Amino acid sequence: MTTILYSLAGADRSRPFSPHCWKIVLALRHKDLDFEEKPLAFTEISEVEGGFSKTVPILRDGDKLVSDSFQIALHLEEAYPDRPSLFRGEGGKAMARFVEGYSQTTIHPAISAIALMDIYNILAPADQAHFRKTREALFGKPLEEVFPDRDGAIAAFPAKLQALRHMLRSQPFIGGEKPLFADYIVFGALQWLKVTTGSVHLPQDDKALDWFERCLDLFDGAGRKVA
Amino acid sequence: MTTILYSLAGADRSRPFSPHCWKIVLALRHKDLDFEEKPLAFTEISEVEGGFSKTVPILRDGDKLVSDSFQIALHLEEAYPDRPSLFRGEGGKAMARFVEGYSQTTIHPAISAIALMDIYNILAPADQAHFRKTREALFGKPLEEVFPDRDGAIAAFPAKLQALRHMLRSQPFIGGEKPLFADYIVFGALQWLKVTTGSVHLPQDDKALDWFERCLDLFDGAGRKVA
Repeated sequence: MTTILYSLAGADRSRPFSPHCWKIVLALRHKDLDFEEKPLAFTEISEVEGGFSKTVPILRDGDKLVSDSFQIALHLEEAYPDRPSLFRGEGGKAMARFVEGYSQTTIHPAISAIALMDIYNILAPADQAHFRKTREALFGKPLEEVFPDRDGAIAAFPAKLQALRHMLRSQPFIGGEKPLFADYIVFGALQWLKVTTGSVHLPQDDKALDWFERCLDLFDGAGRKVA
Repeated sequence: MTTILYSLAGADRSRPFSPHCWKIVLALRHKDLDFEEKPLAFTEISEVEGGFSKTVPILRDGDKLVSDSFQIALHLEEAYPDRPSLFRGEGGKAMARFVEGYSQTTIHPAISAIALMDIYNILAPADQAHFRKTREALFGKPLEEVFPDRDGAIAAFPAKLQALRHMLRSQPFIGGEKPLFADYIVFGALQWLKVTTGSVHLPQDDKALDWFERCLDLFDGAGRKVA
């Protein structure tokens, strides 16, 4: 039975952009598993696998269906214990939750402030209507007015990665000498920014950019396949 | 041979306050090791153990001397493998570096902005002169003018713990169901704030405060012994 990763894309299906789905692309490659990626529009998610989940990633792994990126990583770790570990122990599993907390509360809001309109602009028409409606309800204002200072958000972005830079003084990856799922969590966020805006908006001499490039190189350049 | 932890205190030697030394107090208790804590003044550090280190913590463990809190934690893990692990695996060891990066770049600057003058005020006279001279050289202005908006810094502080709060939705400690060295890293920062200013400046209903209280409860309330 095929392993299928349902992910998210805009009008161009060849450019999936969801941060949470990119985490799982690299997690599946880390486990050296064959899979088929099926990028969906937002408004198609509820139509696949009998409406199993309102969000992607959704992983069909044989007869098993799992949603939520962290739950999928835990599933892969449990189902494929003989493949390279995504966590390297219980401490790593627990602390990946802290890295997730950092990514969700520090990096994701900063990326939203840059990329909100970029995301809107690459969506298929039906998704644009959905995206506008749900985000305008969430923010209580027209989409165009939610983050009026995109240049300011770009200028503020590099500072959000200070924790990563400090860590990079000690080791090349969050996982140590080699990457683990915690790296893919932060990679997914920056890949989301790159695919939707064309840049990660970091200076050329930034050690955090070097780390991102190392992640792009992984698994035959899996992250570079969406330029 | 006795195990000695050289730590840091102000005029009142019964109130050690260094964040990095508090990490090691809890790490030693975690390993269930007997030790004697010797709180020093800043200006005494270079006088102990033949001038081994310019900073504390310094651990004398039998015939071994180690400085730097992370190096001490690594030493304890290696020297006492049969005691409870501080990292629970290589992934946890690597990711504790990320938690350290977060603590150093996000929490420590926010605490400095609140507590700089509080720290100065509790130091012994010789240390006050040293502290003023080194910090004024670092910041390029009189100590009293470095952080003029203490109330603003207090108001901004709770937001610095968002990553921790997000993680606490999944588990009670950074280490998972039980605390690991990564918890002691962040605990040390908040304990520094508490001992020097009398409060961690978090609202009563804050999940991050609940976590801090859980850390204070550990090892017969080791952290509560300095009220």
